[in-house]
Amino acid sequence: MTRAAVITVGNELLFGETVDTNAAWLGRTLSASGIEVVRRYTVGDVEVDIQEALRRAMVDTELVLITGGLGPTPDDITKVAVADLCGRELVADEGLRARLAERFRAAGYDEIPALSESQYQVPRGARVLRNPAGTAPGLLLEEGNVTVVMLPGVPGELKAIVAGDFAPVMARFSGEALHHRLVHTTGIFETRLAEALEPAIEALKGPERSAIRLAYLPDQLGVDLRLTIVGGSSEAAARHCDAWLAGVGHVLDPWRFESASGDLAEAVVDELRRAGRTLAVAESCTGGLIGARVTAVPGSSRVFAGGTIAYSNDVKVHQLGVSEQDLHRDGAVSAAVASQLAAGAAQLFGADVGVGVTGVAGPGGGSDEKPVGTVWIGVSVDGDVETFVARYPGDRAGVRTRAAQAALARVYRHVRNLDGG
Amino acid sequence: MTRAAVITVGNELLFGETVDTNAAWLGRTLSASGIEVVRRYTVGDVEVDIQEALRRAMVDTELVLITGGLGPTPDDITKVAVADLCGRELVADEGLRARLAERFRAAGYDEIPALSESQYQVPRGARVLRNPAGTAPGLLLEEGNVTVVMLPGVPGELKAIVAGDFAPVMARFSGEALHHRLVHTTGIFETRLAEALEPAIEALKGPERSAIRLAYLPDQLGVDLRLTIVGGSSEAAARHCDAWLAGVGHVLDPWRFESASGDLAEAVVDELRRAGRTLAVAESCTGGLIGARVTAVPGSSRVFAGGTIAYSNDVKVHQLGVSEQDLHRDGAVSAAVASQLAAGAAQLFGADVGVGVTGVAGPGGGSDEKPVGTVWIGVSVDGDVETFVARYPGDRAGVRTRAAQAALARVYRHVRNLDGG
Repeated sequence: MTRAAVITVGNELLFGETVDTNAAWLGRTLSASGIEVVRRYTVGDVEVDIQEALRRAMVDTELVLITGGLGPTPDDITKVAVADLCGRELVADEGLRARLAERFRAAGYDEIPALSESQYQVPRGARVLRNPAGTAPGLLLEEGNVTVVMLPGVPGELKAIVAGDFAPVMARFSGEALHHRLVHTTGIFETRLAEALEPAIEALKGPERSAIRLAYLPDQLGVDLRLTIVGGSSEAAARHCDAWLAGVGHVLDPWRFESASGDLAEAVVDELRRAGRTLAVAESCTGGLIGARVTAVPGSSRVFAGGTIAYSNDVKVHQLGVSEQDLHRDGAVSAAVASQLAAGAAQLFGADVGVGVTGVAGPGGGSDEKPVGTVWIGVSVDGDVETFVARYPGDRAGVRTRAAQAALARVYRHVRNLDGG
Repeated sequence: MTRAAVITVGNELLFGETVDTNAAWLGRTLSASGIEVVRRYTVGDVEVDIQEALRRAMVDTELVLITGGLGPTPDDITKVAVADLCGRELVADEGLRARLAERFRAAGYDEIPALSESQYQVPRGARVLRNPAGTAPGLLLEEGNVTVVMLPGVPGELKAIVAGDFAPVMARFSGEALHHRLVHTTGIFETRLAEALEPAIEALKGPERSAIRLAYLPDQLGVDLRLTIVGGSSEAAARHCDAWLAGVGHVLDPWRFESASGDLAEAVVDELRRAGRTLAVAESCTGGLIGARVTAVPGSSRVFAGGTIAYSNDVKVHQLGVSEQDLHRDGAVSAAVASQLAAGAAQLFGADVGVGVTGVAGPGGGSDEKPVGTVWIGVSVDGDVETFVARYPGDRAGVRTRAAQAALARVYRHVRNLDGG
């Protein structure tokens, strides 16, 4: 497999003013072509730093992509730095000059502006990769066994060149493709998931055990599993993944959800639609977060009946039918209130499934008995209500995010077990 | 100025499955403290690659931050790689073990699971930086003249540690401070803001004109202006910024808002509190987004009366008192319905200010007359209702986000002009 390095150039990347989305996009694009990115460097607009990164990359890899710093302004020095390191002088490329002149004429200029004259200078022997979306072309140099490709940093221009003149270059380096499949889980810690899963993987008998490389990708909302298969057709890879899931998937079942986007809310909307059921929410501490996530899914209007943001006790009692006595006795953060919020939401909006969430999101409001992070969640399905309590770590945002995710997860489990109707 | 390097670890970063937002965030955070990030490396979960990047970074810089690969699963090898390179064995940290045991007990475990035992192992002599948001602590090593800091890759955990135990470390490296002030605006394009602002800056007479470097930082929600002053005391910098704002601020007034976090919802909550008013929302196309943003602000319970997610016409009519005739005549996305949603929300929740939002978020549902992105917003203040319409660009998420922001901006303007009551 070809080993590649990516060098992204720009102070704005180091200072964090720009998030380096090019690097991620190039990583995906190259790995889909069976080219493995094994290094990435980000350096500022400093000639020696660009050269140092390039020198190192040329030792380690066969294909080096450098993006950024190819524009016409004084801080764009990538081309000069690369030409200098490779001992090549800059020369005018007449084809490039002609296309550039035409481009500027179309924009109402008589001639190429002085500032842009550098744009048709190329290192001697470089191949020009045309830029259909801007004035800075891509440039390709063969240096011994290494191919060095410079690409502009403007994402649209980068992508246009990669899809155009760079495509056959990429094809030349293409090795065995990397096939990925993501399996989404929520509601279980990475550690616990691995404890459950690793023995099941050990027990696998078929080729899928050795063929599949597994990575755990945790975030606040859950743990994704990435299955990777090197080489072969995408059909064969899909078969391996299916066999792997058939062998160990039962271990994942309590936490797994299926969603093209990876968003649990999408999975909930899909399941509600399949089951022919509707959902309503009554949100206290999550304050609209669950509704916002569900309605973010296109087509959710068919299954989302509505919701009430029930921040005050008054709203809980008068709109959602929570018992004043229970509120007084157990407090707003309690099983009774979560249960009545869930049932009340279902009733108020005429929905099959109701969700009620009430908790202490913090930073204030915690007590010994109910510390910050305590959340009661109720789910009512066709009139049967279930409640559970959790204590979430993190700040206000973290508690709310986790509570919303847990509520959606519970809805998903319940609805998945319902028949369509 | 201290030179720092950032190393981010993870195959998912090289393969582009994850965009490296941590690197950008660290860049911003460090440069705000006068620490210059001069290199960034991204390597896969490969021991020798981590070590090679670290070795190089330790030659070039005084402070090296490594993020990612500190979790408990087999692909997490950062700690082992660093300890090995630095010639330090891994030893159990008893304080860490105790906190970890407590954390797992709270999560229902009898003891620390075998897989997580690595989480309390630290390179000999390392300082533990506590992680309030997860199980993987930060670790700090002094290696000769270089300080090496390992931080977990989960963004929430990384940020929590940087804000906590890492803050004094960062302060120790702080160089000639960069003083920043952010001025927040919303509702105006970057170009237009610059057109209005630049002549006003040209007309400034005092030292604040030359002392202040201005950057425009646009995003989906608005344009922040970053004023930067290099060196001097923070008091002097604050005086320059005040003078600058006194001179040109009138140009910004129609779009500017004040908020410590930069979040407009926080500004709305502050103004409501100052004015002694309460807010309720009736959200159709935003589906709870405004409620979620307002209730994300600590202390919002004092000013947020509640909300209804009024996705269906039925809810609009029966809960919020929207006229069926108007709905039929003008459609759900109309001035009449936005106005009645706003007034209805205020009445239903007994609030002083009501907001109603109804629009076509897409991808479906658009028409020639009301294309995707068309949103009507109503704001009712003490019984007076104002409506306006906008057409937002972008996909479903973009339209919803912009509509919620515009509604909050209108509430902010109105409430700022109210006296406290």
